[in-house]
Amino acid sequence: MKKKNKRVKAAILIIGNEILSGRTEDKNVSFISNWLNLQCGISVNEVRIVPDIEKMIVKHLIELSKKYNYVFTTGGIGPTHDDITAQSISRAFKVKYEYHKEAFKILENYYGKSKFNDGRKKMAKMPRGSKLIYNPSSAAPGFIFKNILSLPGVPSILNSMIENCKKYLIKGSKIHSKTLNLFTVESNISKQLGLIQKKYKKFVDLGSYPFFRLGKIGVSIVSRSTSKTKLQSVNRDLIKLIKLKKIQILKI
Amino acid sequence: MKKKNKRVKAAILIIGNEILSGRTEDKNVSFISNWLNLQCGISVNEVRIVPDIEKMIVKHLIELSKKYNYVFTTGGIGPTHDDITAQSISRAFKVKYEYHKEAFKILENYYGKSKFNDGRKKMAKMPRGSKLIYNPSSAAPGFIFKNILSLPGVPSILNSMIENCKKYLIKGSKIHSKTLNLFTVESNISKQLGLIQKKYKKFVDLGSYPFFRLGKIGVSIVSRSTSKTKLQSVNRDLIKLIKLKKIQILKI
Repeated sequence: MKKKNKRVKAAILIIGNEILSGRTEDKNVSFISNWLNLQCGISVNEVRIVPDIEKMIVKHLIELSKKYNYVFTTGGIGPTHDDITAQSISRAFKVKYEYHKEAFKILENYYGKSKFNDGRKKMAKMPRGSKLIYNPSSAAPGFIFKNILSLPGVPSILNSMIENCKKYLIKGSKIHSKTLNLFTVESNISKQLGLIQKKYKKFVDLGSYPFFRLGKIGVSIVSRSTSKTKLQSVNRDLIKLIKLKKIQILKI
Repeated sequence: MKKKNKRVKAAILIIGNEILSGRTEDKNVSFISNWLNLQCGISVNEVRIVPDIEKMIVKHLIELSKKYNYVFTTGGIGPTHDDITAQSISRAFKVKYEYHKEAFKILENYYGKSKFNDGRKKMAKMPRGSKLIYNPSSAAPGFIFKNILSLPGVPSILNSMIENCKKYLIKGSKIHSKTLNLFTVESNISKQLGLIQKKYKKFVDLGSYPFFRLGKIGVSIVSRSTSKTKLQSVNRDLIKLIKLKKIQILKI
């Protein structure tokens, strides 16, 4: 029986002035994308980075939530005034922003009653109806509301939580990829690459990315597909092209 | 005479499957943002990352171009089939996608007539009316069309070209920033930080970012403003808070 090709698509909404100002380099997009690809067969089709401004967060949340199977937000779920992700989701979908009982208990336990101040309590406030995404490193949970999964911005904490998102996600067809690193320049093979891409248009995405390595310039040709067979066909065509042009392959 | 506070806002549109798939980590957002901030007083207020799909690029270009003073695109101006930024801009604004005479000459000179093949020629095709952004590292120029500045995706090449964008940009008021690195946790100061932010709401953006350093956790408090005076006032309030709470400052 032929397996049906199931495309599940996600977007990432990165919330935080520190990324937009250039102060902090985002590490979460590549981590989440790789994880979704490899672990869940989900592809990330769009990313947006927005400041800590409720009106903007609300607008983007509504747009992305309609358009994609899942939206991952990063950042803005801590204890300070600029952490407004949970309240923005509540606003966007017109539900109450309130204490999540289990989250409240987890945090109260973690900090102890006497040290459980207002800032810390804030981290238990979520849109009504949220389910928790547990946090093994610093207790404060993320949450899923509708198709929106909210995670913290600190990469090490986010990384430790990602496995706990799995149970909420429908899996898509695994996306396979194959990379050929060639010692050539893009414009030497661009015409033929274009023809190969055309031939496999519906099945394979073919990308070409210049690199500099060992003092030489080169091009990585990356093919991606949910079908291993089509990927092999593309690879055969690429190998033919490489032989024809007498291009050296970089073995890593 | 009091200098008028001039806000100039930009967006970045990153075009490329390789960033969305997680294969490549973006380096351009923080570089462009920092440069715009420091060199031009321009703040980046939104970033979007989209795949090499014309329909999507067109949609986002139109939206961002309306909303911001400038849109910087990165990626998609090379010689291969997946480089479709220039043709997407032409499509978005309904102008001809054609050879730019000067760009054609630059590239023809660089490669020499006999090696100036179709892929390389493609890099001279731009929306009609574009002006060039010169490329000191690999010849192929970027371009500005309306308020859209198109740069390549390879960070080292982009970095070498950024100065050549300056002449096309209106400068805004310089955004000053001050960082205090504190050995404390966010929730210890979140309430007071919120009050300080409220007090200077219109003038200063106050952000709080956890860090891990020297085996300890801490928080960086970053204040940003076009007014140095307001920044100093915020800093005085922060120092008061730090003394009150007996928090140690990390000197870097």
